[in-house]
Amino acid sequence: MAGNTFGNLFKLSTFGESHGAAIGGVLDGCPPGIEIDLEEIQNELNRRKPGQSAIVTQRKEPDTVEFYSGIFEGKTTGTPIGFAIHNTNQKSGDYSHIKDSYRPSHADYVYDKKYGFRDYRGGGRSSARETASRVVAGAIAKQFLSSMKINAFVSQVGGLKLEKNYQELDFSLIESNPVRCPDTEMAAKMEDYIKDVRKEGDTIGGVITCVIQNVPIGLGEPVFDKLHAELGKAMLSINAVKGFEYGSGFEGVMMKGSEHNDAFNPDGTTKTNFSGGIQGGISNGMDIYFNVAFKPVATVIQPYQTIDKEGNTVTTKGKGRHDPCVVPRAVPIVEAMTALVLADYFLLAKAINS
Amino acid sequence: MAGNTFGNLFKLSTFGESHGAAIGGVLDGCPPGIEIDLEEIQNELNRRKPGQSAIVTQRKEPDTVEFYSGIFEGKTTGTPIGFAIHNTNQKSGDYSHIKDSYRPSHADYVYDKKYGFRDYRGGGRSSARETASRVVAGAIAKQFLSSMKINAFVSQVGGLKLEKNYQELDFSLIESNPVRCPDTEMAAKMEDYIKDVRKEGDTIGGVITCVIQNVPIGLGEPVFDKLHAELGKAMLSINAVKGFEYGSGFEGVMMKGSEHNDAFNPDGTTKTNFSGGIQGGISNGMDIYFNVAFKPVATVIQPYQTIDKEGNTVTTKGKGRHDPCVVPRAVPIVEAMTALVLADYFLLAKAINS
Amino acid sequence: MAGNTFGNLFKLSTFGESHGAAIGGVLDGCPPGIEIDLEEIQNELNRRKPGQSAIVTQRKEPDTVEFYSGIFEGKTTGTPIGFAIHNTNQKSGDYSHIKDSYRPSHADYVYDKKYGFRDYRGGGRSSARETASRVVAGAIAKQFLSSMKINAFVSQVGGLKLEKNYQELDFSLIESNPVRCPDTEMAAKMEDYIKDVRKEGDTIGGVITCVIQNVPIGLGEPVFDKLHAELGKAMLSINAVKGFEYGSGFEGVMMKGSEHNDAFNPDGTTKTNFSGGIQGGISNGMDIYFNVAFKPVATVIQPYQTIDKEGNTVTTKGKGRHDPCVVPRAVPIVEAMTALVLADYFLLAKAINS
Amino acid sequence: MAGNTFGNLFKLSTFGESHGAAIGGVLDGCPPGIEIDLEEIQNELNRRKPGQSAIVTQRKEPDTVEFYSGIFEGKTTGTPIGFAIHNTNQKSGDYSHIKDSYRPSHADYVYDKKYGFRDYRGGGRSSARETASRVVAGAIAKQFLSSMKINAFVSQVGGLKLEKNYQELDFSLIESNPVRCPDTEMAAKMEDYIKDVRKEGDTIGGVITCVIQNVPIGLGEPVFDKLHAELGKAMLSINAVKGFEYGSGFEGVMMKGSEHNDAFNPDGTTKTNFSGGIQGGISNGMDIYFNVAFKPVATVIQPYQTIDKEGNTVTTKGKGRHDPCVVPRAVPIVEAMTALVLADYFLLAKAINS
Repeated sequence: MAGNTFGNLFKLSTFGESHGAAIGGVLDGCPPGIEIDLEEIQNELNRRKPGQSAIVTQRKEPDTVEFYSGIFEGKTTGTPIGFAIHNTNQKSGDYSHIKDSYRPSHADYVYDKKYGFRDYRGGGRSSARETASRVVAGAIAKQFLSSMKINAFVSQVGGLKLEKNYQELDFSLIESNPVRCPDTEMAAKMEDYIKDVRKEGDTIGGVITCVIQNVPIGLGEPVFDKLHAELGKAMLSINAVKGFEYGSGFEGVMMKGSEHNDAFNPDGTTKTNFSGGIQGGISNGMDIYFNVAFKPVATVIQPYQTIDKEGNTVTTKGKGRHDPCVVPRAVPIVEAMTALVLADYFLLAKAINS
Repeated sequence: MAGNTFGNLFKLSTFGESHGAAIGGVLDGCPPGIEIDLEEIQNELNRRKPGQSAIVTQRKEPDTVEFYSGIFEGKTTGTPIGFAIHNTNQKSGDYSHIKDSYRPSHADYVYDKKYGFRDYRGGGRSSARETASRVVAGAIAKQFLSSMKINAFVSQVGGLKLEKNYQELDFSLIESNPVRCPDTEMAAKMEDYIKDVRKEGDTIGGVITCVIQNVPIGLGEPVFDKLHAELGKAMLSINAVKGFEYGSGFEGVMMKGSEHNDAFNPDGTTKTNFSGGIQGGISNGMDIYFNVAFKPVATVIQPYQTIDKEGNTVTTKGKGRHDPCVVPRAVPIVEAMTALVLADYFLLAKAINS
Repeated sequence: MAGNTFGNLFKLSTFGESHGAAIGGVLDGCPPGIEIDLEEIQNELNRRKPGQSAIVTQRKEPDTVEFYSGIFEGKTTGTPIGFAIHNTNQKSGDYSHIKDSYRPSHADYVYDKKYGFRDYRGGGRSSARETASRVVAGAIAKQFLSSMKINAFVSQVGGLKLEKNYQELDFSLIESNPVRCPDTEMAAKMEDYIKDVRKEGDTIGGVITCVIQNVPIGLGEPVFDKLHAELGKAMLSINAVKGFEYGSGFEGVMMKGSEHNDAFNPDGTTKTNFSGGIQGGISNGMDIYFNVAFKPVATVIQPYQTIDKEGNTVTTKGKGRHDPCVVPRAVPIVEAMTALVLADYFLLAKAINS
Repeated sequence: MAGNTFGNLFKLSTFGESHGAAIGGVLDGCPPGIEIDLEEIQNELNRRKPGQSAIVTQRKEPDTVEFYSGIFEGKTTGTPIGFAIHNTNQKSGDYSHIKDSYRPSHADYVYDKKYGFRDYRGGGRSSARETASRVVAGAIAKQFLSSMKINAFVSQVGGLKLEKNYQELDFSLIESNPVRCPDTEMAAKMEDYIKDVRKEGDTIGGVITCVIQNVPIGLGEPVFDKLHAELGKAMLSINAVKGFEYGSGFEGVMMKGSEHNDAFNPDGTTKTNFSGGIQGGISNGMDIYFNVAFKPVATVIQPYQTIDKEGNTVTTKGKGRHDPCVVPRAVPIVEAMTALVLADYFLLAKAINS
């Protein structure tokens, strides 16, 4: 309820502040007997990790995950998987610039109002560092759901938008460039643009597109827990996300029903897929695809005015090493949350479907 | 879990198929002592009801709600509120055109695959008729949250988009026209356009904007259950919704951090509100606003080809009375779901906030 | 959360006060395609119903259930089953004796303190009338779990205790007498005793034993949601229940480990069954058996002193038609709650077990 | 759902096997600003710890808890509290005697059947070692609920039963003897008896009584989530528990209503307290008291016959250091689970009560 648990049957509970001793979680409900490739989990963490390229924050965090339970002789046991990532970068630093003043468009102000108190060393619980725990659990979910293929990639940075349909793209190129855009030419433009933004000490937003292939028919529940509703919630729970659309999305608004309807082939597949692989909240076996909009990161390396706890105006400046654009590092997070949603519905379908 | 319950503390469970004996629900967790205006609840239902104007479906359904429990001497008792809306329009009709064949972009196909079986008289549980129960519960939530102001309105129909900022609009005009657009000129254009679409036997999509004013600071939870994540899920659970964005939304992608950050005033309010009233998943006291994209309704009154259960191609035709554009009737549904989300978080804040 | 929902996957939400328009519920998560015998559901309700024999309350309540959804052409559809039992016995009676004063050992006082307000016409939500909704849902659960055999019976009334082991009893005799004790001789004694108690205007407690046979191995979860923990909660949620024990129970305290351990047969069954069919919270395939203790009903037909809302001492008297002993009518309720627990764990095992 | 989470608002999720790297958990929903005495938490763990006296297992486990998050500058922050207890006693021992055979009345057999696979090094997840995580979270709950007084003690070991009413006892004596019985004379008898049982290599059961004082009126929910139902579930979820009764319990069965009813004093307290401080599932402000029955531990140090995975009969023998009677060490676990239940209902009451 307090919002640190995701999922019902395949259920992740996380803990940890950006500057505390460790972050981590408990993944409960993972079925027994799943072979776990620990290296692959660490690979996913490395995709999210700071310092991996010139266009992300240069902070150094090894982000090594330790597992405490639930995996035995290389396989899940069906019992909860406890894990932690120790923070090695805890500097007893100078936080005076954020302890008593509120950074604009961060959560500092609302935390103080809600909790009367906050861990002022960095973003605390609202830091994107928390998403590392999601990536660990999502990597396990991916291994559980190995027959489904989940590919996320960057499709827009600022005004630079990849106009291609996902079917025209080669997903094997996603990891070939630091932007994680599977179009080499566009990726180069985006990379240059992000470097320019960084030089200005500024930040820029972006869009991640995610495609799920080989989805079994029948995942999702008809009313409140429609598959796309839960996917939407999962994406909107990621830091900096401002919008979600699936299938025809906001563009679909301008279409007529006669165009938008997806005619059936005799085998139950459809000729078009404006539905985005989901009808009535339930997967129909076609590819699921959706877009996730990310705002520009709030931390800019420019002087700005803000207020302190007493409401006095103060002038301050973001410090150090920030992400000029969050989407390259957010790609594995989008995939992780997608995998967590699918794993939960997959188990539910086992229980309920005919 | 099976997806017919919404909310945790202020919790609605619904039942009912479009052509069964009744639809209804149980609203649990409504605090005791709230004065309930039953007429106001019926008013909300009437806003959603078929047949209310020339641009919506002409089906006649009185949609009269009966309360069975939880309200005594005009006030809630703190016990569950059971209610039902009896279906008076149950024709023992001819359903042969949909019993054995699948309407494109409806849920018929996936229901048969998921459940092995379906109530083929209309859309069953996937019918938008189900949303009447949400409107009843939402109307109670609104009365519980009477200090907050929730206004939804139509801001786009097909390519006709209201380009005004919500601050320039007069919400008292929303109910002055059948489209529910608070700009008289644009409303007239939209109405004409919807009539044209209807004549073609076709349908068109639209966008609803929702604005919440007088929100207390501190609603929402920091990680998975961010306030906008739950609002997004609530909206995406409404039939025909394809997208959700809040605050700067998809447009915000193209902004730089230095522009997008909302500078503080000394009193903690912000000079701009790209954040959409929510920071780090928690309300900051500014107006919350979001957009919801609806696809064109799948039922068109034109002949079309589809498949039957055996995969044979059949030619059929939508019948009768349909909604050429769903957004005018969806306005109270958007408001109802918004109220349910807020009521749930309001109770949670009472339990947890400092 | 507010306590009117039971179960996670096979989930019942109920509503209704003793003297309101109707009681009922929504049963969500019942798998599709289960054949439903409506007459059998009504039979179960009739076993719980007032007025069925000389030793229960003589109130007349037809308790006829109406189904609104989720059952089509004699089978469940997988969608929620909405149902109601209309109250036909709503007298606009004289409630002044309970409106402003508190009956001892009833919930009147705590309801007023908790909710600031209560429906004073009878017990409201704390009335055992609420359990009729449980019996309806439980009857559906029984049909879903038809391979398991659930038999509850009265094993003690006041000091009259059936000393036989359940294996020595013939369950087909349970319904042969109004006490629901499958030992004809003891049943006669109990019946006489209850009649004596009634003549005094008094009430007496009792014990119900429940036996579940043909339980599949592997139901239950290892830590907090042990199968017997959830059975215990289910039983303790029934009005007037004061205790629960399973397997060796409170007697087992006095045994040594060497006696209490259930030695295995080569086929995995055990030679003894002090474990009560559950080990480590998980069913082992042996019979599950447990006892449920019921206190004497609080409503006695004798004058008594109590207090009113202002704390003044008042003298009053229970009225009318009460149950001298609750256990005969509680037998179907114990079975219903047992079936609901088993159905929930059965679905969970489908999702999670290897 | 998979059973490793307890509570809704004040919510504990645990992980860890007896012989894995660590056990621990995530406590979510603890309100912000609570001062935490870490030493007091460790004290509670020490009460549960092996090796503390001559009548418990002589295993050496330091059981030192590390906190990772959620506590800052000595106070809770409102964010999840992650913690772990590293296992220092992991011997790469010889488990061949339990790897392929099933210990009677342990969970080995059902785990293999349910999960197809188990961590055979000790009891895995079914080991009572898991309860250390409960004690940590319960110790925090106690500090949150500091105005309520929770005292558990041993009231029976085998046939040795403390016949005194709890009001006649001095709770300050509980920790004065290794049995944790607040009657010095009876404690000595129990201690001698446990030593005798241990010499035989056998084990014996017992009863723990728990008393909660200073409970506010209005905790608990009326129907399925009655306060005593959740307390019952909490107790039955502890390893080796076979029964639960509160207030008059199983003895109350033999009382008449006229005796059992608790007459009111003018201030709303009652002259007797057969209700055990709970009426209609809701606390009435009187002391809550209940008994919990524990079976004899299954591990006996005597040769016994059992079966292996193939169903062959094998002769084996329990090894090493076991608990001859579990109740002395279970006292802090009963208190911890009690505190967790109360904390959850306390928060719920803040949200819902008038």
